[in-house]
Amino acid sequence: MKIVALVVTVLVCTIAISAQSASQQSQIKSEILKVMNAQTDAWNRGDVDAFMKGYWNSENLRFVSGDTVTRGWQPTLDRYKLRYDSREKMGTLTFSDLTVEVLSKDAAMVLGSWSLARANDNPKGKFTLIFRKTRDGWLIVHDHTS
Amino acid sequence: MKIVALVVTVLVCTIAISAQSASQQSQIKSEILKVMNAQTDAWNRGDVDAFMKGYWNSENLRFVSGDTVTRGWQPTLDRYKLRYDSREKMGTLTFSDLTVEVLSKDAAMVLGSWSLARANDNPKGKFTLIFRKTRDGWLIVHDHTS
Repeated sequence: MKIVALVVTVLVCTIAISAQSASQQSQIKSEILKVMNAQTDAWNRGDVDAFMKGYWNSENLRFVSGDTVTRGWQPTLDRYKLRYDSREKMGTLTFSDLTVEVLSKDAAMVLGSWSLARANDNPKGKFTLIFRKTRDGWLIVHDHTS
Repeated sequence: MKIVALVVTVLVCTIAISAQSASQQSQIKSEILKVMNAQTDAWNRGDVDAFMKGYWNSENLRFVSGDTVTRGWQPTLDRYKLRYDSREKMGTLTFSDLTVEVLSKDAAMVLGSWSLARANDNPKGKFTLIFRKTRDGWLIVHDHTS
Protein backbone atom coordinates (compact mmCIF):
# COMPACT_ATOMS: atom_id res chain seq x y z
CA MET A 1 0.00 0.00 0.00
CA LYS A 2 2.87 2.36 0.72
CA ILE A 3 4.13 2.01 -2.86
CA VAL A 4 0.66 2.61 -4.26
CA ALA A 5 0.35 5.76 -2.15
CA LEU A 6 3.74 6.93 -3.36
CA VAL A 7 2.89 6.32 -7.01
CA VAL A 8 -0.44 8.13 -6.64
CA THR A 9 1.28 11.06 -4.91
CA VAL A 10 3.89 11.34 -7.65
CA LEU A 11 1.22 11.15 -10.35
CA VAL A 12 -1.03 13.76 -8.76
CA CYS A 13 1.96 15.97 -8.14
CA THR A 14 3.14 15.60 -11.75
CA ILE A 15 -0.26 16.42 -13.17
CA ALA A 16 -0.72 19.38 -10.84
CA ILE A 17 2.63 20.87 -11.76
CA SER A 18 2.57 20.12 -15.48
CA ALA A 19 -0.94 21.20 -16.19
CA GLN A 20 -1.36 24.79 -17.14
CA SER A 21 -5.03 25.13 -16.68
CA ALA A 22 -7.12 27.20 -19.03
CA SER A 23 -7.68 29.66 -16.20
CA GLN A 24 -3.92 30.05 -15.58
CA GLN A 25 -3.36 30.69 -19.29
CA SER A 26 -6.19 33.16 -19.37
CA GLN A 27 -4.73 34.93 -16.31
CA ILE A 28 -1.30 35.16 -17.99
CA LYS A 29 -2.83 36.52 -21.20
CA SER A 30 -4.76 39.12 -19.27
CA GLU A 31 -1.63 40.26 -17.38
CA ILE A 32 0.33 40.57 -20.64
CA LEU A 33 -2.42 42.54 -22.38
CA LYS A 34 -2.53 44.85 -19.37
CA VAL A 35 1.19 45.60 -19.80
CA MET A 36 0.67 46.29 -23.50
CA ASN A 37 -2.32 48.54 -22.85
CA ALA A 38 -0.25 50.49 -20.34
CA GLN A 39 2.39 50.86 -23.07
CA THR A 40 0.04 52.36 -25.67
CA ASP A 41 -1.52 54.61 -23.01
CA ALA A 42 1.95 55.87 -22.04
CA TRP A 43 3.02 56.38 -25.66
CA ASN A 44 -0.16 58.25 -26.50
CA ARG A 45 0.39 60.75 -23.72
CA GLY A 46 3.97 61.24 -24.97
CA ASP A 47 5.63 59.41 -22.08
CA VAL A 48 8.40 57.21 -23.54
CA ASP A 49 9.82 56.47 -20.08
CA ALA A 50 6.51 55.01 -18.92
CA PHE A 51 6.19 53.14 -22.24
CA MET A 52 9.56 51.50 -21.46
CA LYS A 53 8.17 50.06 -18.21
CA GLY A 54 6.78 47.22 -20.34
CA TYR A 55 10.36 46.14 -21.07
CA TRP A 56 12.65 44.11 -18.81
CA ASN A 57 15.05 46.58 -17.18
CA SER A 58 18.15 44.52 -17.93
CA GLU A 59 21.24 44.69 -20.08
CA ASN A 60 20.00 41.41 -21.57
CA LEU A 61 16.88 42.98 -23.11
CA ARG A 62 16.96 42.59 -26.91
CA PHE A 63 15.28 44.84 -29.47
CA VAL A 64 15.58 43.59 -33.05
CA SER A 65 14.74 45.77 -36.04
CA GLY A 66 15.94 45.35 -39.63
CA ASP A 67 19.51 44.07 -39.46
CA THR A 68 20.18 45.59 -36.04
CA VAL A 69 19.99 44.17 -32.51
CA THR A 70 19.87 46.75 -29.72
CA ARG A 71 20.93 45.14 -26.45
CA GLY A 72 19.96 46.45 -23.03
CA TRP A 73 17.17 48.55 -21.58
CA GLN A 74 18.99 51.90 -21.66
CA PRO A 75 20.13 51.63 -25.31
CA THR A 76 16.56 50.63 -26.24
CA LEU A 77 15.18 53.70 -24.44
CA ASP A 78 17.83 55.88 -26.13
CA ARG A 79 16.84 54.44 -29.52
CA TYR A 80 13.17 55.30 -28.97
CA LYS A 81 13.98 58.82 -27.74
CA LEU A 82 16.24 59.44 -30.74
CA ARG A 83 13.71 58.24 -33.31
CA TYR A 84 10.67 59.78 -31.66
CA ASP A 85 12.03 63.08 -30.38
CA SER A 86 8.79 65.03 -30.66
CA ARG A 87 5.12 64.48 -29.87
CA GLU A 88 4.39 64.78 -33.62
CA LYS A 89 6.76 61.93 -34.49
CA MET A 90 5.24 59.75 -31.76
CA GLY A 91 1.75 60.14 -33.17
CA THR A 92 -0.94 57.81 -31.87
CA LEU A 93 0.11 54.20 -31.37
CA THR A 94 -2.30 51.30 -31.83
CA PHE A 95 -1.61 47.62 -31.27
CA SER A 96 -3.98 45.21 -33.05
CA ASP A 97 -4.41 41.59 -34.22
CA LEU A 98 -2.81 40.40 -30.99
CA THR A 99 -2.13 36.66 -30.61
CA VAL A 100 -0.80 35.70 -27.18
CA GLU A 101 0.67 32.20 -26.92
CA VAL A 102 1.61 30.95 -23.46
CA LEU A 103 4.75 28.81 -23.76
CA SER A 104 5.21 27.90 -20.10
CA LYS A 105 4.28 29.25 -16.68
CA ASP A 106 6.92 31.96 -17.07
CA ALA A 107 7.20 32.50 -20.84
CA ALA A 108 4.85 33.67 -23.57
CA MET A 109 4.99 35.16 -27.02
CA VAL A 110 2.87 37.80 -28.66
CA LEU A 111 2.43 38.39 -32.38
CA GLY A 112 0.78 41.66 -33.26
CA SER A 113 0.48 44.66 -35.55
CA TRP A 114 1.53 48.21 -34.67
CA SER A 115 0.58 51.42 -36.39
CA LEU A 116 1.26 55.08 -35.80
CA ALA A 117 -1.34 57.63 -36.84
CA ARG A 118 0.58 60.85 -37.59
CA ALA A 119 -0.24 64.09 -39.37
CA ASN A 120 1.62 63.17 -42.56
CA ASP A 121 2.04 59.41 -42.59
CA ASN A 122 0.87 56.15 -41.06
CA PRO A 123 3.83 53.80 -40.52
CA LYS A 124 2.91 50.26 -39.52
CA GLY A 125 4.29 46.79 -39.15
CA LYS A 126 4.43 43.61 -37.09
CA PHE A 127 6.12 42.58 -33.87
CA THR A 128 7.02 39.34 -32.17
CA LEU A 129 7.48 39.76 -28.42
CA ILE A 130 8.81 37.30 -25.87
CA PHE A 131 7.47 37.95 -22.40
CA ARG A 132 8.96 36.37 -19.27
CA LYS A 133 7.51 36.45 -15.80
CA THR A 134 10.03 38.41 -13.74
CA ARG A 135 9.93 39.49 -10.11
CA ASP A 136 8.42 42.72 -11.46
CA GLY A 137 5.68 40.83 -13.31
CA TRP A 138 5.36 39.93 -16.99
CA LEU A 139 7.78 41.98 -19.09
CA ILE A 140 9.08 42.01 -22.66
CA VAL A 141 12.56 40.46 -22.77
CA HIS A 142 12.81 40.28 -26.58
CA ASP A 143 11.15 42.45 -29.24
CA HIS A 144 11.48 41.81 -32.97
CA THR A 145 9.75 44.61 -34.84
CA SER A 146 9.41 45.05 -38.59
CA MET B 1 6.13 10.11 9.71
CA LYS B 2 3.67 9.50 6.92
CA ILE B 3 3.19 13.24 6.49
CA VAL B 4 6.92 13.83 6.46
CA ALA B 5 7.32 11.17 3.76
CA LEU B 6 4.55 12.77 1.75
CA VAL B 7 6.05 16.25 2.03
CA VAL B 8 9.49 14.95 1.03
CA THR B 9 7.99 13.09 -1.94
CA VAL B 10 6.14 16.17 -3.13
CA LEU B 11 9.27 18.30 -2.75
CA VAL B 12 11.53 15.87 -4.58
CA CYS B 13 8.92 15.46 -7.27
CA THR B 14 8.51 19.23 -7.66
CA ILE B 15 12.23 19.81 -7.94
CA ALA B 16 12.67 16.94 -10.39
CA ILE B 17 9.91 18.22 -12.66
CA SER B 18 10.69 21.92 -12.41
CA ALA B 19 14.41 21.72 -12.83
CA GLN B 20 15.65 21.87 -16.35
CA SER B 21 19.13 20.66 -15.80
CA ALA B 22 22.02 22.18 -17.67
CA SER B 23 22.39 18.92 -19.56
CA GLN B 24 18.73 18.96 -20.67
CA GLN B 25 19.13 22.55 -21.91
CA SER B 26 22.33 21.66 -23.70
CA GLN B 27 20.58 18.66 -25.32
CA ILE B 28 17.71 20.90 -26.52
CA LYS B 29 20.12 23.48 -27.93
CA SER B 30 22.04 20.79 -29.75
CA GLU B 31 18.82 19.37 -31.29
CA ILE B 32 17.74 22.83 -32.45
CA LEU B 33 21.11 23.65 -33.97
CA LYS B 34 21.00 20.31 -35.79
CA VAL B 35 17.67 21.31 -37.38
CA MET B 36 19.11 24.66 -38.44
CA ASN B 37 22.27 23.08 -39.87
CA ALA B 38 20.10 20.69 -41.88
CA GLN B 39 18.23 23.77 -43.16
CA THR B 40 21.33 25.56 -44.45
CA ASP B 41 22.66 22.31 -45.93
CA ALA B 42 19.35 21.80 -47.78
CA TRP B 43 19.22 25.42 -48.98
CA ASN B 44 22.79 25.32 -50.21
CA ARG B 45 22.13 22.28 -52.39
CA GLY B 46 19.08 24.09 -53.81
CA ASP B 47 16.51 21.92 -52.02
CA VAL B 48 13.77 24.24 -50.68
CA ASP B 49 11.49 21.28 -49.82
CA ALA B 50 14.15 19.79 -47.54
CA PHE B 51 14.83 23.28 -46.08
CA MET B 52 11.13 23.44 -45.15
CA LYS B 53 11.48 20.29 -43.03
CA GLY B 54 12.73 22.58 -40.25
CA TYR B 55 9.27 24.16 -40.09
CA TRP B 56 6.19 22.75 -38.33
CA ASN B 57 4.01 21.20 -41.02
CA SER B 58 0.82 22.85 -39.82
CA GLU B 59 -1.64 25.48 -40.95
CA ASN B 60 -0.74 27.26 -37.69
CA LEU B 61 2.86 27.89 -38.73
CA ARG B 62 3.56 31.64 -38.88
CA PHE B 63 6.15 33.42 -41.01
CA VAL B 64 6.41 37.15 -40.34
CA SER B 65 8.31 39.51 -42.65
CA GLY B 66 7.86 43.28 -42.96
CA ASP B 67 4.17 44.00 -42.50
CA THR B 68 3.06 40.54 -43.67
CA VAL B 69 2.19 37.35 -41.78
CA THR B 70 2.17 34.18 -43.90
CA ARG B 71 0.13 31.50 -42.14
CA GLY B 72 0.56 27.78 -42.75
CA TRP B 73 3.31 25.49 -43.97
CA GLN B 74 2.21 25.33 -47.63
CA PRO B 75 1.87 29.12 -48.09
CA THR B 76 5.32 29.52 -46.47
CA LEU B 77 6.81 26.99 -48.89
CA ASP B 78 5.05 28.73 -51.81
CA ARG B 79 6.49 32.07 -50.65
CA TYR B 80 10.04 30.71 -50.59
CA LYS B 81 9.63 29.07 -54.00
CA LEU B 82 8.26 32.28 -55.51
CA ARG B 83 11.01 34.50 -54.12
CA TYR B 84 13.85 32.07 -54.74
CA ASP B 85 12.90 30.50 -58.06
CA SER B 86 16.43 29.83 -59.27
CA ARG B 87 19.66 28.47 -57.85
CA GLU B 88 21.22 31.91 -58.45
CA LYS B 89 18.62 33.69 -56.32
CA MET B 90 19.07 31.15 -53.53
CA GLY B 91 22.81 31.80 -53.35
CA THR B 92 24.64 30.44 -50.32
CA LEU B 93 22.85 30.77 -46.99
CA THR B 94 24.73 31.28 -43.73
CA PHE B 95 23.24 31.49 -40.23
CA SER B 96 25.46 33.19 -37.63
CA ASP B 97 25.44 34.88 -34.18
CA LEU B 98 22.97 32.26 -32.94
CA THR B 99 21.54 32.67 -29.43
CA VAL B 100 19.33 29.78 -28.33
CA GLU B 101 17.23 30.41 -25.24
CA VAL B 102 15.32 27.47 -23.79
CA LEU B 103 11.97 28.72 -22.43
CA SER B 104 10.55 25.41 -21.18
CA LYS B 105 10.96 21.71 -21.84
CA ASP B 106 9.02 22.09 -25.10
CA ALA B 107 9.68 25.71 -26.17
CA ALA B 108 12.75 27.69 -27.14
CA MET B 109 13.65 30.81 -29.06
CA VAL B 110 16.54 31.53 -31.37
CA LEU B 111 17.88 34.95 -32.34
CA GLY B 112 20.27 34.90 -35.26
CA SER B 113 21.62 36.53 -38.38
CA TRP B 114 21.11 35.26 -41.93
CA SER B 115 22.99 36.19 -45.06
CA LEU B 116 22.89 35.11 -48.68
CA ALA B 117 26.09 35.19 -50.71
CA ARG B 118 25.01 35.72 -54.34
CA ALA B 119 26.80 36.74 -57.54
CA ASN B 120 25.54 40.33 -57.47
CA ASP B 121 24.45 41.08 -53.92
CA ASN B 122 24.61 39.94 -50.32
CA PRO B 123 21.23 40.39 -48.62
CA LYS B 124 21.23 39.86 -44.87
CA GLY B 125 19.17 40.36 -41.76
CA LYS B 126 18.01 38.95 -38.45
CA PHE B 127 15.48 36.34 -37.39
CA THR B 128 13.63 35.43 -34.23
CA LEU B 129 12.44 31.82 -34.24
CA ILE B 130 10.15 30.05 -31.83
CA PHE B 131 10.80 26.32 -31.71
CA ARG B 132 8.39 23.85 -30.09
CA LYS B 133 9.02 20.20 -29.40
CA THR B 134 6.51 18.33 -31.57
CA ARG B 135 6.02 14.61 -32.11
CA ASP B 136 8.36 15.09 -35.09
CA GLY B 137 11.04 16.69 -32.91
CA TRP B 138 12.00 20.36 -32.45
CA LEU B 139 10.52 22.47 -35.25
CA ILE B 140 10.06 26.18 -36.02
CA VAL B 141 6.46 27.19 -35.30
CA HIS B 142 7.03 30.96 -35.68
CA ASP B 143 9.60 32.84 -37.76
CA HIS B 144 9.99 36.61 -37.70
CA THR B 145 12.58 37.61 -40.28
CA SER B 146 13.81 41.10 -41.11
